[in-house]
Amino acid sequence: MPITQVSILQGKSETYRRMVADSVCDALHQAFGVPEDDRFVTILEHQAADFVFSPLSMGVARTEDLLIFRVTANRGRSVDQKKAFYSRLASLLQERLKVLPENVFINIVEVDKENWSFGSGIAQLA
Amino acid sequence: MPITQVSILQGKSETYRRMVADSVCDALHQAFGVPEDDRFVTILEHQAADFVFSPLSMGVARTEDLLIFRVTANRGRSVDQKKAFYSRLASLLQERLKVLPENVFINIVEVDKENWSFGSGIAQLA
Amino acid sequence: MPITQVSILQGKSETYRRMVADSVCDALHQAFGVPEDDRFVTILEHQAADFVFSPLSMGVARTEDLLIFRVTANRGRSVDQKKAFYSRLASLLQERLKVLPENVFINIVEVDKENWSFGSGIAQLA
Repeated sequence: MPITQVSILQGKSETYRRMVADSVCDALHQAFGVPEDDRFVTILEHQAADFVFSPLSMGVARTEDLLIFRVTANRGRSVDQKKAFYSRLASLLQERLKVLPENVFINIVEVDKENWSFGSGIAQLA
Repeated sequence: MPITQVSILQGKSETYRRMVADSVCDALHQAFGVPEDDRFVTILEHQAADFVFSPLSMGVARTEDLLIFRVTANRGRSVDQKKAFYSRLASLLQERLKVLPENVFINIVEVDKENWSFGSGIAQLA
Repeated sequence: MPITQVSILQGKSETYRRMVADSVCDALHQAFGVPEDDRFVTILEHQAADFVFSPLSMGVARTEDLLIFRVTANRGRSVDQKKAFYSRLASLLQERLKVLPENVFINIVEVDKENWSFGSGIAQLA
């Protein structure tokens, strides 16, 4: 039951943004085994002055179509699962929205199971 | 000295949003022993297309009044303290704003004490 | 290759905000050894009702010019490196923008190396 925050430059359509959200949920389902109906994504639309990125670093060339994904998830996925998630998300975004793979920046923050309440004031996983 | 980021659908009044912020600080005070005058909350108001959530998952039914809390706090609270925090926050929001407990989604990210500067360029807890 | 999210009250100029972003990247370069061309910062501009902070806590007096920095970085920097980062960032902001050091609030979240994809669907550090 991860939650994802996406940063994006202002100007993309609602349809585009919804597809970005769908894609990260689908990739989490396929690579991390997150249930298909667990979909929690918030999107932040930034003005250019508030969206600062390196156009070239680590051998990756980026454009204004950059998407920054901050995923918070339970601790314990393997390195291979994480690699599969990165690859899957980049592929889905390229297929569906023609996003260049270079424009998919991802960070995962991991937490313990007792660090979630999915509602109702209880710790569902503890 | 936790810091909380809240995601909420656009359209709630300033009074409502201030009460949401107050409630998470009060719950952190009561359940985690955070000093009463330590209050750090930022609120993100999203358009509907930027606020994606499962209306039903993990047996919890949610509505557009959903509140997503991302709390960053020092490592070391017990599972019981976390459970008390979830319960207290849901109760306060129900009492004060008639928020359904199902609409209170919470995630805690934990960090080490040296990972904070509360101002003045120093690490107050290290 | 850290990524930083900055919360700030609405009303500062683009020049000011760009300088804030530059300063955190420069401080990360100087204190953490982050490559100079690795610059990833998103800025959130809040209305007053959405930017709640203690005007006085932990012996620090703050004003509406408060800046809240949430830095996500690789695990493993020493306490001394973190202290150097806090001090450097406060100094740079004071020199360049006359920000009072009391108005520089910083939190660091640490993650493992395999928790990053800097683009192209791969885990560059794993």
